[in-house]
Amino acid sequence: MELKKYIRTIKDFPEKGIEFKDISLLLANGIALNYTINEMALLAKDADIIVGPDARGFLFGTPVAATLKKPFIMVRKQGKLPGEVVSCDYGLEYGRNVLEIQKGIVQKGQKAVIIDDVLATGGTLEAIIKLLNSQGVEILRIIVLMELEGFNARERLDCDIKSLIYINKGE
Amino acid sequence: MELKKYIRTIKDFPEKGIEFKDISLLLANGIALNYTINEMALLAKDADIIVGPDARGFLFGTPVAATLKKPFIMVRKQGKLPGEVVSCDYGLEYGRNVLEIQKGIVQKGQKAVIIDDVLATGGTLEAIIKLLNSQGVEILRIIVLMELEGFNARERLDCDIKSLIYINKGE
Repeated sequence: MELKKYIRTIKDFPEKGIEFKDISLLLANGIALNYTINEMALLAKDADIIVGPDARGFLFGTPVAATLKKPFIMVRKQGKLPGEVVSCDYGLEYGRNVLEIQKGIVQKGQKAVIIDDVLATGGTLEAIIKLLNSQGVEILRIIVLMELEGFNARERLDCDIKSLIYINKGE
Repeated sequence: MELKKYIRTIKDFPEKGIEFKDISLLLANGIALNYTINEMALLAKDADIIVGPDARGFLFGTPVAATLKKPFIMVRKQGKLPGEVVSCDYGLEYGRNVLEIQKGIVQKGQKAVIIDDVLATGGTLEAIIKLLNSQGVEILRIIVLMELEGFNARERLDCDIKSLIYINKGE
């Protein structure tokens, strides 16, 4: 299935100069959504845990985890998770951010697959990898709906990366 | 399956006096997560569209939509959705909020099932119902993972509500 046709580019969002990739039409097509989740699940079959960041990583991470009957681990922005947390501060395309997971929610030696919607600079994913590694979790793979050309995220992350859609510059 | 045992109460989060219901352990159990999604999907079979709010509504809404091969419609906080939006401003348990959907993402006459994690005061859900009604969408049902006693949300919402877990005061 050609998923790319469901991705819209919206210029100057959320800031001038950013070409935002809108996934709303893909989510709003039940067949495309179901296909996306099944493809991601095939690529995540060997994981012990599925990890996804707040909020768009939730859209793809939980369905994959539910399909595979595997644990889903939330990575959230600062102050959103209750109880004791482990944090990671990082810079991203537009601004800075702090990501957190709950202390004790993952176990040393687990193999994780991280799922998100977009791979651009890889800043968010790099922070998640650091967070998980700090807890003794091994990263098996990153799965994203779409990968954007020209940000060199693959060099930065040095990790197995699978993307369902590849978007060339200017597309 | 007894889902209640996966819900933890965390006192004074995010503010003093609030008893936060933590769903992390349910998500982190693959069998419980899979069971939850299947139960919700059974209750949403007659929907044209599945609607879920940012961020915890995404955790349950997308898997149900993907399972049923139905459209998933995101409701997001202000400024998160690109393109033209329709907004609704409302008061909630702790603070105020603006929720948005994209203009044109739903069609008049569609029947919606709204999915979220918790039903307490019903403020967020009331705002979502208003947003959808303003676009000519009919609300078939609200499905939540858990319903909290003592907030009178059922009187406020006047809508078919199904909850998988019922939590009494003080539990």
